[in-house]
Amino acid sequence: MRDDRSVSDYETLDYSVVDGICTLTLNRPEQLNSFTVTMANELVDAFTRASTDDETRVVVVTGAGRAFCAGMDLTKEGNVFGLTPGLAPTVQDLTERLDDPVIFEGVRDTGGRVSLAIYACTKPVIAAINGAAVGIGATMTLPMDIRLASTKARIGFVFGRLGIVPEATSSWFLPRIVGISRALEWTYAADILSPDEALAGGLVRSLHEPDQLLPAAYALARTFIDGRSPVGIALTRQMMYRNSAQPHPIEAHRIDSLAMYYTSFADGEEGVRAFLEKRDTEFTGRTSSDMPPFYPWQE
Amino acid sequence: MRDDRSVSDYETLDYSVVDGICTLTLNRPEQLNSFTVTMANELVDAFTRASTDDETRVVVVTGAGRAFCAGMDLTKEGNVFGLTPGLAPTVQDLTERLDDPVIFEGVRDTGGRVSLAIYACTKPVIAAINGAAVGIGATMTLPMDIRLASTKARIGFVFGRLGIVPEATSSWFLPRIVGISRALEWTYAADILSPDEALAGGLVRSLHEPDQLLPAAYALARTFIDGRSPVGIALTRQMMYRNSAQPHPIEAHRIDSLAMYYTSFADGEEGVRAFLEKRDTEFTGRTSSDMPPFYPWQE
Amino acid sequence: MRDDRSVSDYETLDYSVVDGICTLTLNRPEQLNSFTVTMANELVDAFTRASTDDETRVVVVTGAGRAFCAGMDLTKEGNVFGLTPGLAPTVQDLTERLDDPVIFEGVRDTGGRVSLAIYACTKPVIAAINGAAVGIGATMTLPMDIRLASTKARIGFVFGRLGIVPEATSSWFLPRIVGISRALEWTYAADILSPDEALAGGLVRSLHEPDQLLPAAYALARTFIDGRSPVGIALTRQMMYRNSAQPHPIEAHRIDSLAMYYTSFADGEEGVRAFLEKRDTEFTGRTSSDMPPFYPWQE
Repeated sequence: MRDDRSVSDYETLDYSVVDGICTLTLNRPEQLNSFTVTMANELVDAFTRASTDDETRVVVVTGAGRAFCAGMDLTKEGNVFGLTPGLAPTVQDLTERLDDPVIFEGVRDTGGRVSLAIYACTKPVIAAINGAAVGIGATMTLPMDIRLASTKARIGFVFGRLGIVPEATSSWFLPRIVGISRALEWTYAADILSPDEALAGGLVRSLHEPDQLLPAAYALARTFIDGRSPVGIALTRQMMYRNSAQPHPIEAHRIDSLAMYYTSFADGEEGVRAFLEKRDTEFTGRTSSDMPPFYPWQE
Repeated sequence: MRDDRSVSDYETLDYSVVDGICTLTLNRPEQLNSFTVTMANELVDAFTRASTDDETRVVVVTGAGRAFCAGMDLTKEGNVFGLTPGLAPTVQDLTERLDDPVIFEGVRDTGGRVSLAIYACTKPVIAAINGAAVGIGATMTLPMDIRLASTKARIGFVFGRLGIVPEATSSWFLPRIVGISRALEWTYAADILSPDEALAGGLVRSLHEPDQLLPAAYALARTFIDGRSPVGIALTRQMMYRNSAQPHPIEAHRIDSLAMYYTSFADGEEGVRAFLEKRDTEFTGRTSSDMPPFYPWQE
Repeated sequence: MRDDRSVSDYETLDYSVVDGICTLTLNRPEQLNSFTVTMANELVDAFTRASTDDETRVVVVTGAGRAFCAGMDLTKEGNVFGLTPGLAPTVQDLTERLDDPVIFEGVRDTGGRVSLAIYACTKPVIAAINGAAVGIGATMTLPMDIRLASTKARIGFVFGRLGIVPEATSSWFLPRIVGISRALEWTYAADILSPDEALAGGLVRSLHEPDQLLPAAYALARTFIDGRSPVGIALTRQMMYRNSAQPHPIEAHRIDSLAMYYTSFADGEEGVRAFLEKRDTEFTGRTSSDMPPFYPWQE
């Protein structure tokens, strides 16, 4: 059952899987794990990998050293976001030419590319916010399903102080998590939130002493693994995000019906049998090969 | 005013109307009110009936005996959900052929058919969760507007332990009620929630001693009846669910305008007159015959 | 920096700008600031004006005298909402003929026209609810971003008692602010909420002694002004409301990318420079002239 692997081909991340839990560590501690285009590309790769890595059942994201992620690395020459000057992009460009290299490299928000990869992930994602999480360091945690924070965490949606805007699809996620009124107040004020404010506002689920943060994240992750169906969990995650954003519950009904149909003739048969026989389940479905044919819908 | 009726042509339900309140009791106490296809069909019928039954002003749903609904009856032969093996349904099938008997009977989620009937109901719906509410017993309460629970209630979104997925359009409703982060944690963990957890998470409005649960539900229902316009309440319910899920408030404005237009020349005239004359209102509009011509929009 | 202006060309409002804060006072104190078609038109004008008035950085809305707004003025002859009898408007009319004078004047909900103007405003909007806020007096505060209330405030979504429905796009906003379950309970019961109930339900952010209400609103407004980019704040407001209501975060990603692109080559350059030079920012972008070309999207 134990599978201790560390993927070392990333420059800015550590990807390590132990007992079903992939710990993804932002790993530029000397730079307070500040965000770069390389880190963005590696995060996209890591979440895509985790989606089909059957040894990974839950992803826990944390930072090396004392910060989680102190925001964009602002020391770069030229446009610090890596954007190409002199273009005049339009909504139409961002609709029709999303993967055109001119748009992909020169216009698209790098944090958003990471958020979309996290959104598409088939595994539950837990943020273990161990220290400063500022700017993209804050917004990248929003598409993570659940946020645990250290009592040393400091979370800041500080874009308003830099003359820019909240990015990384945070305007889709933040109002869903903390409500529209608090989302607006926090992004207008652009202040650093204390752990207590983040907890009271519903941004984080629970606070932990620094040395208890990862153990708490792992204990929570455990409750999503043992005796659960990976395919069932993967579908549940996508259903919750996608169906809840539809204009009418009939859209959920279509997907529910398909998801129930396919799972009830797969892991569901084992689940019901085990229940009736009062024994533990032994699910065989894998996200690498056994996602039902209608998945991913809405792409 | 008193109208004491009990409809006895259901096998699995009791439908009883007293003083404007329809109590809909899941009535298979020996089986802990476990859910069957017959119960699904009868619930669809009962909510459709309540929609045009002018004696019913509010629906209260509860369970006979010690459970609310212990989930799907898993003792059935073959596919416990009543689905037809060997089909290969697609999103297109669930979009274009929803009422085709092959899809309707063999593929569509039965819990979802119940949820859609509750969603379409013209009357406020209150769940009085008197005991175990597990699986479909938990998800069927989500399209009910308000959940009250006994201190003996145990609520569980346990699908993840059975190798299946949360159904009955719960992925549309649960994140709206408890937030996306808690919805994910609860469905990933698939545990049984205590009444206190359900209350703290916002799933239930209030907790009550077992013998005080129905009285509390009835007292709340009362505040939706006396002096209120049935047509106004019916429109309010549909407007809240439907308009809030639209991509822009202009959609609400279109429906608001129509709803204000038609009600202001109907029960609204009596409402304003009574207000100015400082007397009680006597509304005459009925949901059976007086819903305005634009209702139901979005079907 | 100080700019003390009062616009006196409104009959029902006072519009006064001091130090970046526009105080918009509903000003019919003898009538408890009750709402009329004139007030609706003046509110639309005032929020449109505030959007491009560069001296206005935040709008604070309050009421003169002891009420905030006691609801629609019900003493008018004929239809108190100003609607034209004898029409038979349809969803199609409200979709295709929104600005046709027959529909605009005779059918469209006047409160909704105000809400849409507030929604479109480029400045943060704070409601300082100083007293009774009933009917349209309650619903008009919902598209305001943050609500502060006096301990004397009384807030009531009382439409259900008048035979009409919650309007002013409240069915879009109220469930977003207080959740669908509470939104339904409050509008079904149609009661007057105490300040404590409004606070507990998440409708208001904080309660204040009557003489501390405006100072608290101004102190909060201040945190949205000093050192923030007006263009960044304007985009943030529209992104939060619009993107969060889209069916998929990819829609947010399109707008984020454009907003980051244009701001990062404008106020964002100054923001990063000032950060690196550890000095205060001096943003030059103005909402009157410097909104990026893709704004307003989705119109």
